[in-house]
Amino acid sequence: MTQPAHQESDLSSFREDLVRAIEEGNAELCDSRLDQAPSRDAIYVLAGLSDDQRTRLLTLLSPEDAADVIEQLPEAQAVDSLEDLDAATAANIIGELSSDDQADLIKAIDDDEARAILDKLDTDTAANVRRLVEYHDESAGGLMHTEYFVFQQSHTIGDVLADLDKNAEKYAKYDIQYMYIIDDYGKLAGVLPIRQLLLSNRSLKLCDVMIADPISISDTMPLDELAGVFREHPFVGLPVIESTGGLLGVVEHADVEQAVADGADSVYRQSQGIVGGEELRSMPLLVRSRRRLAWLSTNIVLNILAASVIALHQETLEAVIALAVFLPIISDMSGCSGSQAVAVSIRELTLGITRPRDIVRVLFKESAVGVLNGIALGLLIGAVAYAWKGNIYLGAVLGLALMLNTIIAVCIGGAVPLILKSMKVDPALASGPILTTITDLCGFLLVLSFAAAAIGYLTG
Amino acid sequence: MTQPAHQESDLSSFREDLVRAIEEGNAELCDSRLDQAPSRDAIYVLAGLSDDQRTRLLTLLSPEDAADVIEQLPEAQAVDSLEDLDAATAANIIGELSSDDQADLIKAIDDDEARAILDKLDTDTAANVRRLVEYHDESAGGLMHTEYFVFQQSHTIGDVLADLDKNAEKYAKYDIQYMYIIDDYGKLAGVLPIRQLLLSNRSLKLCDVMIADPISISDTMPLDELAGVFREHPFVGLPVIESTGGLLGVVEHADVEQAVADGADSVYRQSQGIVGGEELRSMPLLVRSRRRLAWLSTNIVLNILAASVIALHQETLEAVIALAVFLPIISDMSGCSGSQAVAVSIRELTLGITRPRDIVRVLFKESAVGVLNGIALGLLIGAVAYAWKGNIYLGAVLGLALMLNTIIAVCIGGAVPLILKSMKVDPALASGPILTTITDLCGFLLVLSFAAAAIGYLTG
Repeated sequence: MTQPAHQESDLSSFREDLVRAIEEGNAELCDSRLDQAPSRDAIYVLAGLSDDQRTRLLTLLSPEDAADVIEQLPEAQAVDSLEDLDAATAANIIGELSSDDQADLIKAIDDDEARAILDKLDTDTAANVRRLVEYHDESAGGLMHTEYFVFQQSHTIGDVLADLDKNAEKYAKYDIQYMYIIDDYGKLAGVLPIRQLLLSNRSLKLCDVMIADPISISDTMPLDELAGVFREHPFVGLPVIESTGGLLGVVEHADVEQAVADGADSVYRQSQGIVGGEELRSMPLLVRSRRRLAWLSTNIVLNILAASVIALHQETLEAVIALAVFLPIISDMSGCSGSQAVAVSIRELTLGITRPRDIVRVLFKESAVGVLNGIALGLLIGAVAYAWKGNIYLGAVLGLALMLNTIIAVCIGGAVPLILKSMKVDPALASGPILTTITDLCGFLLVLSFAAAAIGYLTG
Repeated sequence: MTQPAHQESDLSSFREDLVRAIEEGNAELCDSRLDQAPSRDAIYVLAGLSDDQRTRLLTLLSPEDAADVIEQLPEAQAVDSLEDLDAATAANIIGELSSDDQADLIKAIDDDEARAILDKLDTDTAANVRRLVEYHDESAGGLMHTEYFVFQQSHTIGDVLADLDKNAEKYAKYDIQYMYIIDDYGKLAGVLPIRQLLLSNRSLKLCDVMIADPISISDTMPLDELAGVFREHPFVGLPVIESTGGLLGVVEHADVEQAVADGADSVYRQSQGIVGGEELRSMPLLVRSRRRLAWLSTNIVLNILAASVIALHQETLEAVIALAVFLPIISDMSGCSGSQAVAVSIRELTLGITRPRDIVRVLFKESAVGVLNGIALGLLIGAVAYAWKGNIYLGAVLGLALMLNTIIAVCIGGAVPLILKSMKVDPALASGPILTTITDLCGFLLVLSFAAAAIGYLTG
């Protein structure tokens, strides 16, 4: 619709060709059509295939081409597809991926199926993957890959050049910016920038030309610290070591940023109640329904709890039925104001510029915004109520209640993510329901008790 | 609180030392304390300085060290600090940054101040920045940097090695994985992997060893396509060319991923009404209040509009006051269900696996989830109403209304981001208010008109 017509027809003919090629079992045509298509069209069409078509496509393609397809699919679809394949085919495809992708997928695949695939992988690869899956996804160990140049410090520049020549094919996808130099015990001893390698005499030993004591990263370093280290040292990659100093792998700046992107994305989805972070509409209906319902059912119970305050003040409401019109507005607006404070707190926690200990500063900063915005919103709702019913007291009750509740909402919204973080609970998932329950409770209570106090002026 | 006590005291002493060093004007101590501190502590303490302290620190440090500080600050603070400095000092610091960071900052700095800084930069740098700021932030041109190795195809391997040796210092931060080879007209002719350079005879010409017709990217390519290209070709960087084939710069995978991360982060904040995407609590109160209020005031008007439906059905409400307890629940729960669908649509749009033309499929997929979750939530709310009031008809009215409204909410939530996207409006900012207005309107209307129809069974 937003694209020129000829592009749409390109896309349709690409999809038709691909589906036909899959049905005919024409591997060559599948491969050539995928190669020709722009990557965004390839992703769109691949993700739109049926599960059967995708599985057949992966079986048709060479393991290397199939691995390219797997890399482009959303992870959930890649996992489903690999689970649908027989273990040997899946293992061949996984064998073509980089070690960090291998570990991510094996971790996400069903346990039984994952074990079957590991059995079919060659022994070294399988052992490496088994080691990598032990790490937390958002740690240096979970993000590192194990394809990197490593040489003994006693070797010479000439040895390295000979090795590069001999293993050119194996090294094709390695990042060559840095070579890592280890001592006799496998401990990281230094880093050799490729520039140094280029310009040094071939007979020199690596220990004489390398940068000793290089920056390195502990395998347990969490993602937020990693992002900070790369902000300070903008290298393409950094070496990862275990506590005893042994070199384990290399973590790349791009992979760290991608993990940060995935995390940021997941914050938004979790805040909207997509539990577990990922939902694609191609997933089975019951899975999608169940995941969403997990959060909704908690929320409705909290909602009922908050609304019970209204039930307790039913006689006030009966006397001033106009209040019923405003209760949902008070509830929604306080929720909005509080959510803004939640979003700012989550952002500042992510950037590392606010920590849980800063709660007093956050409350101070939020209450100031709360007073200003509370006055603005309170005046507005008060004016609307007055204009509607011609009763200044009704306006005052509602305006004052919304003003106070806005202040409460921003303070709670600002504080809850910090408190959850200090309790090691994910602020993205839990902040919203906690916030709205408290602000609803307070909002209803404020409106109805102010109204009860001023009941003589509101009726008649 | 969540950290061992000695770390907290490290942090305090780091902050105290730094503040004292700034006040004493001790540049050396500032620098050494910043170097020693872990990067996450440096970010936390730097962001927590007062504006004055930060400006003085930047003046004290060498331009290179000051540039390191600028790189670590959140962009909004970096911009403020640079605006506070005199143009010459700011220009010296900016001169130390990479070209893409230079352009980003100059773009964000006040126009007058930016012009003053550009005047103080050396002519080449200023011209380069002026060219880069013309690009959209989320395009290849806006993300590329202009520090890369480029050689004429008629040169030899030996020429390149001599040049690398001679300009070692200038090249210190360049990514050396690939060298870009141009023809006599400045057009990109090929790419030379450093491995090839290492292993080739020094007398060979570059055009004889390079990979001709390399993958390249148009300077106008948008971020989502860039991310797709890097997913397909996991290189560290790719060359950016203008429409006539001239080489303009290099875009790095890590920078693309970082832009994706910033975008994902901003989606969440915009969905919560942080207009403009960025708020730090260190910003002036009035700025923070105004930005939040822009969204809140739109929202409250939409809320009042929706609530006016209740006002129109006041007599029903008066007859069955219990309904007032449930109206905020219906409103909130429909909003939650719809927001989940919004989040999934925004995710699928971002991944490129759903496009605006897929609206029928989305509605189909969402209504299925809506039916299941609507039944579950409707039964729950109906049961609660029945348990409370002992009136089965009240339960039926509320349950049926919530069930239908859940279906409406997920369909609208799923569709609105696609429609906004096809209208080139940012789905993150506008989807929420549109969704909640419609679902509130429908929800109130369903409850109150069902209740009106069944009024005889609900009263007495």
